[in-house]
Amino acid sequence: MKQKVTVVKVGGKIVEAPDTLETLLHRFSALEGLKVLVHGGGRTATEVAAKLGVETHMVDGRRITDADMLRVVTMVYGGLVNKQVVARLQACGVNALGLTGADMNLIRSHRRPERNGVDFGFVGDVDTVDGERLAQLLHSGVTPVVAPLTHDGEGHLLNTNADTMAGEVAKALARQFEVTLVYCFEHAGVLADPDNEASVIPLITRRDFDALKAQGVVTGGMLPKIENCLSAVGAGVRRVVITRADTLQEGCGTTIE
Amino acid sequence: MKQKVTVVKVGGKIVEAPDTLETLLHRFSALEGLKVLVHGGGRTATEVAAKLGVETHMVDGRRITDADMLRVVTMVYGGLVNKQVVARLQACGVNALGLTGADMNLIRSHRRPERNGVDFGFVGDVDTVDGERLAQLLHSGVTPVVAPLTHDGEGHLLNTNADTMAGEVAKALARQFEVTLVYCFEHAGVLADPDNEASVIPLITRRDFDALKAQGVVTGGMLPKIENCLSAVGAGVRRVVITRADTLQEGCGTTIE
Repeated sequence: MKQKVTVVKVGGKIVEAPDTLETLLHRFSALEGLKVLVHGGGRTATEVAAKLGVETHMVDGRRITDADMLRVVTMVYGGLVNKQVVARLQACGVNALGLTGADMNLIRSHRRPERNGVDFGFVGDVDTVDGERLAQLLHSGVTPVVAPLTHDGEGHLLNTNADTMAGEVAKALARQFEVTLVYCFEHAGVLADPDNEASVIPLITRRDFDALKAQGVVTGGMLPKIENCLSAVGAGVRRVVITRADTLQEGCGTTIE
Repeated sequence: MKQKVTVVKVGGKIVEAPDTLETLLHRFSALEGLKVLVHGGGRTATEVAAKLGVETHMVDGRRITDADMLRVVTMVYGGLVNKQVVARLQACGVNALGLTGADMNLIRSHRRPERNGVDFGFVGDVDTVDGERLAQLLHSGVTPVVAPLTHDGEGHLLNTNADTMAGEVAKALARQFEVTLVYCFEHAGVLADPDNEASVIPLITRRDFDALKAQGVVTGGMLPKIENCLSAVGAGVRRVVITRADTLQEGCGTTIE
């Protein structure tokens, strides 16, 4: 039987606000077994950029990353957010190690080509994740804390979507482990009624998803999110859970498998 | 016979300027055997702080680190400088891993108490270095790249002098390895004549040092520097070399043993 690993992805909003960060870290610390935390960026990067005179441009919710913005996200994601989370986790008794994809050549990516006339700049799409090295770290009692930065192997860091990184890390670990991938977000799970937090759909399979889509229950931004979850399951991840950061525990949220 | 490790400390000035950084990284990459890079902070922190409206105060060349300045150095040292160095080293074929003292609980420190009415703020004095964990990393083919930040184990990062960190890392590794500690600085070595770069004193032992001091050959800021080097040698480090970053190779600079 494979050993279990939980990969938790949290957004920048949660790790930036001291109160929600503390709640998350305590929940995360309490999770049994091997685990990985992948964190997003968030608004601090936009604030720091503004103060440094670097303009923020977003296209479809993604940050256009020119050379100056890359410096900002390297500082904020790789330094400020990542190292604060590591220090706090250490205080919670978790032997955390902050990582970007460049560290130990863990996550290689290539610069995203221009699409539909949009040049995202120094944004990377993931090519490979070194699951063996991550497994070694986990077996040696270390909890990786991954910032949303990768590298191209030619000396350049690349800004990378944290949801994607969490998915790729989960898939790479699935070769050796039984992996549960948890996406923390602002709702209690996938809701049957968007105005009712109690209407969480507990389980979604590929067949359910097709039905929910056809019935118009799941729409908009949730469609690609669930599609990504199902694709992770298709690639060997045991289950994906979508839940709120403050209910990071068994039996909460929507399980996709 | 113990395996050899070289611990190289470079100042912030060298890693901040693209041309001197490239030279250093190529020299460092070419060093044979196991190695560790410890980098300082430097002027980028002061520049970023100024743009963010955070005032820089220095006392005896040390940075007073209030909560806002701690955020800045966490971004600049732990993020910008550290991760750029890691990405560049990866491109040079060195399997670099960026670390602060908080990562894997590597370097614990305590906040420096107020001295002579000066409160340095979030500045840490090193208590312990986990030499075993560093040795594991080295044996697994990883080259640690250490930023001048430590933690107190209670969730706080602390700004820490990079020279001191390099010395403590070297001492911790000396239990298992034959350690050469290299301090890169702006001169070719300890100079017998401060106006002549060719007057490098090739070797200084404790006895030589006492004589050089008595003769007034070594004065000012070099005195505590050499004292620290001799103390590292006293604590088991095989030799300490003081040299320029661009001559990072056998037989250059001043050897202290």
